[in-house]
Amino acid sequence: MFQKLAIVGVGLIGGSFGQWARQNRVAREVVGVARREETLVEAVACDCVDWATADLLHACTGADFVFLASPVGQIPAICAQIAPVLAPGCLVTDGGSTKGFVAQCEAIFGEKAHFIGGHPMAGGEKSGPCAARPDLFAGATWILTPTSKSDATALQKLRVLLEKTGAKLLETSPQTHDELVAVASHLPHVCAAALVHCPRETQENAPQIEQIVASGWRDSTRIAEGNPEMWRDISRQNRAALLDSLEKFAAHLEEFRAILRGDDAAKIEEWFRVAADERRRF
Amino acid sequence: MFQKLAIVGVGLIGGSFGQWARQNRVAREVVGVARREETLVEAVACDCVDWATADLLHACTGADFVFLASPVGQIPAICAQIAPVLAPGCLVTDGGSTKGFVAQCEAIFGEKAHFIGGHPMAGGEKSGPCAARPDLFAGATWILTPTSKSDATALQKLRVLLEKTGAKLLETSPQTHDELVAVASHLPHVCAAALVHCPRETQENAPQIEQIVASGWRDSTRIAEGNPEMWRDISRQNRAALLDSLEKFAAHLEEFRAILRGDDAAKIEEWFRVAADERRRF
Repeated sequence: MFQKLAIVGVGLIGGSFGQWARQNRVAREVVGVARREETLVEAVACDCVDWATADLLHACTGADFVFLASPVGQIPAICAQIAPVLAPGCLVTDGGSTKGFVAQCEAIFGEKAHFIGGHPMAGGEKSGPCAARPDLFAGATWILTPTSKSDATALQKLRVLLEKTGAKLLETSPQTHDELVAVASHLPHVCAAALVHCPRETQENAPQIEQIVASGWRDSTRIAEGNPEMWRDISRQNRAALLDSLEKFAAHLEEFRAILRGDDAAKIEEWFRVAADERRRF
Repeated sequence: MFQKLAIVGVGLIGGSFGQWARQNRVAREVVGVARREETLVEAVACDCVDWATADLLHACTGADFVFLASPVGQIPAICAQIAPVLAPGCLVTDGGSTKGFVAQCEAIFGEKAHFIGGHPMAGGEKSGPCAARPDLFAGATWILTPTSKSDATALQKLRVLLEKTGAKLLETSPQTHDELVAVASHLPHVCAAALVHCPRETQENAPQIEQIVASGWRDSTRIAEGNPEMWRDISRQNRAALLDSLEKFAAHLEEFRAILRGDDAAKIEEWFRVAADERRRF
């Protein structure tokens, strides 16, 4: 059992982890950190944490387990702030959706604390601590991104702990993680947004488009409604991998355009067949 | 009331139209045409038609109303075959998902019959005459594509009739129809297929991709499972409009790649925001 678990950012992910940790007595004390007063009140009211504060250093002082569930862009700066006050050998992990900053955090903590990057692939329509559920991670994939610098004991401790949430653990390098989520999540989002841009420019046809969009279009573009600030940040944080997957995607599109231009019936069918067969595997 | 309605192709669309026509006494006689013996038996068993035959000319002889629900590529050839046996002034319409062949059909019939292109945007997971429902078109959009050569009386007759199915009628030129469905339906299909091609090529990562694909990816790529032969034919029949929409789409993607390469936070956010706002209108 840990002495003090500090959860930095008690939204849906941080709050759910807190509820699960409290129910399973993971630590003697579970503290939440948030900037907004309303979030602090809700985090306690919804049983996410024992107590909550806006004071990051106060919350993290003496912590032997830290879960960083704040926006990805803030994580390295938070690590630099809390490093001096943590208990020696503290286990630090995060829930960020990109992992390019892992090496930076490892360097910040050095031997003082053990940082292991993570990404629980769970979520929901609602956000905030009162949308939290202690079983949010059950059945979800939780990616861990250890490196050659990771402390083996800390990593094993984290694995055993997270498996108890019911999540399916998957381990990759930080770089592979970013490539995988670029292809599986960020690229589809950009495509959905680009699809929505298309009818928009045909202003003349737009009213008719609204009448004829069928369920296929609605499904393909649903995710384009996502929060623009969040997707701005995700795109920038995963820029290299996203640009790489966009290049591959553009090449596949160009391949199809070429065989369609050439009206090559057999190749057109084969191109759709490969995709249909592949899709059925998922 | 028509004397004889011939439905060429009694699958889901043709069969549903037949059920609706019989229930609403649209014609004294409703005949179905299909190639396969099994389909003929099912079309009668499932109340789609009064009788069914594989003999196209027998079915169409003396018909004053013809609904062509066969594959799009066969429609002009069927029109050429049936033109000599129809009742004078016969109303002919179709359910094809592209409309590039409309001028060809108008020329085939000349003054003998009145061809007006149509496209009921209805469907379902199942196919065949026994999946038919007389209310399949209620609430669906039914596009009609009259031209300057269309007979005004025949067009008005068709409008009044189809409105009784509960469909919402929308009239465009054949060319605008093809542009609209390219953007709203064919382009999203090609994108979904291209998205599925991306993880496939990263053979090394493929097993992990399967574990991390979230609901966004599943929604974006669901339609890629569609029948490859059907999508081969649709792509070829709507080649010009589809190539045009692919070019626009590629330009939007390239625009995003350029602002992401330049790491322009404000423009990236704006690009996602325009798409999110637009998507919410649908």
